[in-house]
Amino acid sequence: MKHIRVGLIGFGTVGSGLARTLFEQQERLRRKVGTDIVLARVADININALPDQFSNVILSRDANDIFADPTIDIVVELIGGIEPARSFILKAIAGGKHVVTANKALLSIHGREIFDAAVAKGVEVGFEASVGGGIPVIKSLKEGLVANRIEAIQGIMNGTANYILTQMTDHGTPFAEVLKDAQAKGFAEADPTYDVEGIDTAHKLAILMTIAYGLHVKLDDITVEGISSIRPIDIDFAREFGYRIKLLAISRNHGDHVEARVHPTMVPVDHMLANINGAFNAIQFTGDTVGDVLLYGLGAGMMPTGSAVAADVVDIGRDIIAGSINRVPALSYLPQYIGEPAITPMSRLTCPYYFRVTALDQPGVLSTISGIFGKYCISIKSVMQKGRRSDEPVHIVFRSHRASEEAVMQAVAEIDALACCTDPTIKIRILVEDN
Amino acid sequence: MKHIRVGLIGFGTVGSGLARTLFEQQERLRRKVGTDIVLARVADININALPDQFSNVILSRDANDIFADPTIDIVVELIGGIEPARSFILKAIAGGKHVVTANKALLSIHGREIFDAAVAKGVEVGFEASVGGGIPVIKSLKEGLVANRIEAIQGIMNGTANYILTQMTDHGTPFAEVLKDAQAKGFAEADPTYDVEGIDTAHKLAILMTIAYGLHVKLDDITVEGISSIRPIDIDFAREFGYRIKLLAISRNHGDHVEARVHPTMVPVDHMLANINGAFNAIQFTGDTVGDVLLYGLGAGMMPTGSAVAADVVDIGRDIIAGSINRVPALSYLPQYIGEPAITPMSRLTCPYYFRVTALDQPGVLSTISGIFGKYCISIKSVMQKGRRSDEPVHIVFRSHRASEEAVMQAVAEIDALACCTDPTIKIRILVEDN
Repeated sequence: MKHIRVGLIGFGTVGSGLARTLFEQQERLRRKVGTDIVLARVADININALPDQFSNVILSRDANDIFADPTIDIVVELIGGIEPARSFILKAIAGGKHVVTANKALLSIHGREIFDAAVAKGVEVGFEASVGGGIPVIKSLKEGLVANRIEAIQGIMNGTANYILTQMTDHGTPFAEVLKDAQAKGFAEADPTYDVEGIDTAHKLAILMTIAYGLHVKLDDITVEGISSIRPIDIDFAREFGYRIKLLAISRNHGDHVEARVHPTMVPVDHMLANINGAFNAIQFTGDTVGDVLLYGLGAGMMPTGSAVAADVVDIGRDIIAGSINRVPALSYLPQYIGEPAITPMSRLTCPYYFRVTALDQPGVLSTISGIFGKYCISIKSVMQKGRRSDEPVHIVFRSHRASEEAVMQAVAEIDALACCTDPTIKIRILVEDN
Repeated sequence: MKHIRVGLIGFGTVGSGLARTLFEQQERLRRKVGTDIVLARVADININALPDQFSNVILSRDANDIFADPTIDIVVELIGGIEPARSFILKAIAGGKHVVTANKALLSIHGREIFDAAVAKGVEVGFEASVGGGIPVIKSLKEGLVANRIEAIQGIMNGTANYILTQMTDHGTPFAEVLKDAQAKGFAEADPTYDVEGIDTAHKLAILMTIAYGLHVKLDDITVEGISSIRPIDIDFAREFGYRIKLLAISRNHGDHVEARVHPTMVPVDHMLANINGAFNAIQFTGDTVGDVLLYGLGAGMMPTGSAVAADVVDIGRDIIAGSINRVPALSYLPQYIGEPAITPMSRLTCPYYFRVTALDQPGVLSTISGIFGKYCISIKSVMQKGRRSDEPVHIVFRSHRASEEAVMQAVAEIDALACCTDPTIKIRILVEDN
């Protein structure tokens, strides 16, 4: 039987994880697939030699060497970023090669161009590793839940942000300090913006929404708030109220419009997502047939991500052997049935809210702020103030009943304009299952 | 494009769930698969008519009508039990029809015969619904984790048992009372033996082990203990020690031998499996590449199970359309590579233990029992006695450090033979991740 020959662009963390996986699992894969999956070529501009175990692999600095090799069946792109990743993938597709990528940023921005090109050329694009690292999220959604209308997606999709929030929760350490420590330990990037500001989570949500709903959802469709403004005091209040703060991706399917948002969320402690700690990810789908299904595991890292990339390589390899290319459409729905999304405006959302107002401790402040909430029909469930020290501004915490996002935006703007308010008000949405 | 035509044997709970799913999701499936998945025939000896929405479906009392119809591509067996399910499936296979089943009891006993017949005939057997209801457990294991040596399987695989334990934990209600209530509410069968005695869980573990390791594991290979001897007092002690009691399926892969056991287990409260409540299932795989992956959802029920059966039907339908039958081997490994298991003898296990000894409250009892533990080198971590009332036997609870199962069996036998011991000693294994 024909061997499946793989060309890998990018021998960084995930790339070397894939190489190791294909090497270590070679015999196992042969016993499952019936042929060898061979890493034949690697292209990387940063390395001069491959580790000894890969002595049969041809290394070059130029990805074009892979595209030019007619024996390569599958090109794996693991360099990340937009360019030259985009051009490499389009070139591979143009050359009739199948593609596997973990590049969520690229797919959430240029996905349509890439998938259209692949359909036109009759090749496959695998991207299991783009969401949830080693967790088989994409396959479960596309195939396992095929007979479901997906009603909702909720998840913790960024291990770095979740690690930071977990450390803040367990040890009361401030955000900046945990981040610095995480960077020193290699758990967070030198530039952590994508992770802590929710952008990486939004990349992933765009991909999941596209598959779940059959809609071309892009990064720009998603409202994103990060965790950098969360303070230990918010976490303490959350605990007191029976919540944990998590950076959630949330989408709900309202039929003619779909929610698309990433923001810190107060999750009831007895909810599965409240109990996902450290660098772990968890993604929950609600299907009309299956109910809630949650998938949990390591969302990043050399070997877990390598596991997902290898699974895509095997999947495509099986289609090559069986002559069943694009047996499952890349985006779950056949291309002609994928539409444009109507995104629910954030102003139309309603949910209970947590507000932390920072104000000078003056007489009448509470009444003024409460008055503003009242004016916008935001019904307050409880008010709390802690650690009063007359020489510093105080934190006043309000919990509301269900309120509309539009009213909340207006109320917060008016509160923040008060002379007595010294810092922007922090608002955190509280998770309720039916909103 | 050719339609995929399905014949369904058994229009009970899951069968009617499948029929509803195929009906309700018809348009969605057409947009994903490119053709119609048609429920063409139903055979059921217990019904005289199908609901109105299925007016195009031919109902008969004889499953042979399905086998005799040359237009039927896939036979779905949902009658459960061993016979006539086994004969029906073999007959369908012999007729060149693909088979989908949720019948874990059958597969864990006669799986080899069925899979061998299917391989010989070149047809597929789908059984996603046999484990974890609607959760895509089998597909995730076979395809998503394809590039992994599976090191361990741990899971809560029976919703009835987990519901009973959860009720006992949350409300302190005795087993018999919760069971009776669950039966009244339809959460437990009239004969609950399979569910509460761990047999159903063992069926599922046998199936997962077969796929995970490439070994023909049968029900008989698995050591099974149920939950009927658990009392609220054990749950209280567990809570005090930081555990919750769960009925776990556990298998660990030691290379030349594999563990295979189902028993009540004390799970540390911060472990994911401790927090799976009610009728939910959760199955955790540990892979050498991916680490821990856990899949969570409803493990039973009309619609969730229907979702999994429908996913199998679609999967096989896609292979029919693409001409890629048995693109993925039914048991993950190609048939020629599946071996016979060497099961770790229970006597070779070691783990920490919880013991509840029931004894008359006489002077010297504690010393006698402690002496027996010492004699068998079982090192005791703590001893507790609660609710002493002189007119009744008392419960003395011991927690041991890691001890060997063999020593424990001998010690418990010797303790239970003491004149002062009025009831058999309850022993519950404590979950540690490295045993």
